[in-house]
Amino acid sequence: MTLDLSSLDAVAALGPTLPAFDIAAAEAARARQAHLTKPPGALGRLETLAEEFCGWRGDARAEIVSAQALVFAGNHGVCAQGVNPFPQEVTAQMVANFEHGGAAINQLCRVAGARLSVIPLDLDRPTADLSEGPAMTEAETLAAMRAGADAVDPAADILILGEMGIGNSTVAAALAHGLLGGEAGLWVGRGTGADEDGLARKERVVARAAERHGGLTPLEALAALGGREQAAICGAVLAARAARIPVILDGYICTAAALPLHAADPALLAHCWVGHLSREPGHRRLVEALGKTPILDFDMALGEGSGAALALSILRAALACHNGMATFAEAGVSDG
Amino acid sequence: MTLDLSSLDAVAALGPTLPAFDIAAAEAARARQAHLTKPPGALGRLETLAEEFCGWRGDARAEIVSAQALVFAGNHGVCAQGVNPFPQEVTAQMVANFEHGGAAINQLCRVAGARLSVIPLDLDRPTADLSEGPAMTEAETLAAMRAGADAVDPAADILILGEMGIGNSTVAAALAHGLLGGEAGLWVGRGTGADEDGLARKERVVARAAERHGGLTPLEALAALGGREQAAICGAVLAARAARIPVILDGYICTAAALPLHAADPALLAHCWVGHLSREPGHRRLVEALGKTPILDFDMALGEGSGAALALSILRAALACHNGMATFAEAGVSDG
Repeated sequence: MTLDLSSLDAVAALGPTLPAFDIAAAEAARARQAHLTKPPGALGRLETLAEEFCGWRGDARAEIVSAQALVFAGNHGVCAQGVNPFPQEVTAQMVANFEHGGAAINQLCRVAGARLSVIPLDLDRPTADLSEGPAMTEAETLAAMRAGADAVDPAADILILGEMGIGNSTVAAALAHGLLGGEAGLWVGRGTGADEDGLARKERVVARAAERHGGLTPLEALAALGGREQAAICGAVLAARAARIPVILDGYICTAAALPLHAADPALLAHCWVGHLSREPGHRRLVEALGKTPILDFDMALGEGSGAALALSILRAALACHNGMATFAEAGVSDG
Repeated sequence: MTLDLSSLDAVAALGPTLPAFDIAAAEAARARQAHLTKPPGALGRLETLAEEFCGWRGDARAEIVSAQALVFAGNHGVCAQGVNPFPQEVTAQMVANFEHGGAAINQLCRVAGARLSVIPLDLDRPTADLSEGPAMTEAETLAAMRAGADAVDPAADILILGEMGIGNSTVAAALAHGLLGGEAGLWVGRGTGADEDGLARKERVVARAAERHGGLTPLEALAALGGREQAAICGAVLAARAARIPVILDGYICTAAALPLHAADPALLAHCWVGHLSREPGHRRLVEALGKTPILDFDMALGEGSGAALALSILRAALACHNGMATFAEAGVSDG
């Protein structure tokens, strides 16, 4: 199918046009689980992960042959407010580190068997300062969404999403606060290492942004409060869905990036798991708002897709059991 | 070193003779983590797992080249009390399933890159009924411990432990109740699928066993309440420690099997992680008593070493980051 990314309103209306969960495939997968040589339900979440994967792939014996990981990088005008102790140049330096194989996400993709691509998005042209005005125009937002959608390999079986962008934990807090409300402080965390002063500064910036950008639609909020890597994540989520590819989102920043899609229509994120629960304090509240249970919880707060890549190993294990185990009949084991 | 497994008292006294944690190697590993291209601590538990692994291996850049998984199987006289809906023949049937590659643990070891060996222990000679008398003599216990110790490959870098034995969730509850006290019902769960009647039967059996076998040393309790696969797990834990090989224990039954070592001397389990938090309700209390935090939590209750094998993928990821990431200096990234 062709995704209509011609306007933010068109994006918000995509839900009914996208492939739906294949209930028959998921039920056939569940029926198979019941015959495998184990007590019913003994593999816990591994069983439900396998069933969900099969449902989205439309195949009761779906496998992961090709796993794609995409890391989108962007720079943010809100750094002018002193929300991050690292200089913005670090975004490009880390992109180079990704390209040379030296970052955590490179090692984690190697271990989990995912093909990593890094997509820098106009790093020399940061977004506008979201505390002073809209971070992006509609055209900029849609261009970044298209870059994200175009990066998705439609032949992949699973998509891992991550991000890099100095200042983007403030962007995540602004999106979460703008779309879910509550006190600004609930959504602000230390990111790459803010001290008490930095934390207070982030909170003031996030509160000011919400005052300035009230009454927007969810995708207008993405433009006003987000950044290019956030919009690209939304585009990749939608392109994956169009190709029936389940997605593993990463931690706080990646989940917040996808939040505008959920706020526009929860169906747009139905094919997404959250790979891990971040140490950033707002993430628990955020995943609860999405109705998602993160796969892992290791007190991580790195971004780059690191928690999502780790979770891929778990999904691989779930599918190895689902597809590789013998049934009671095949193994000649009494089933009670 | 040679392990003295000549008597239960000798085993209980092994602590001071075993290799200790190499603090200098762990501190050197921690120092390296601080220079890697990530905010300090951003990989959360992956960093502490890597540091602990390096400390036990005595090498600040320790790697996993060879991973061994051992599954011990035994049969239990307590099945005469109707504590399990499956017939005891299923233990041997599942051993055959392991040998033919059809069980969950086969798939999970393949995904995690572990070499699996299954060690059936006198399956045609179940232990005595622990609710009527001691399950094993001292000689039987020591023989099973030696079988466990002998199965450990001293050239492995990590050891995964698991078990199979119809009726052994009752054995686990008996060990936990016998050594940690509390109400019997706190330690009893559904195992492979006990119904309400089965659960009540298990609870009565476990309470009766504790009454019958009071005032024992921890390793006498292993003999009285345990089984061959439990004793073999203890032997393997000790042989691994003698070779400075860290261990990943599995869920409730495997953790309870190792509990007598901890009760004799907590130092005997210092090199062991618990791979996952089991769905069996007593496991949380048990790991708290051991002072351990399970690596994963997927609502699993299968045994076979399944949760430990899953956790191996996480440890591999932790070490891939630890050893493979670039430092700030190597990558030319500003470190704030």
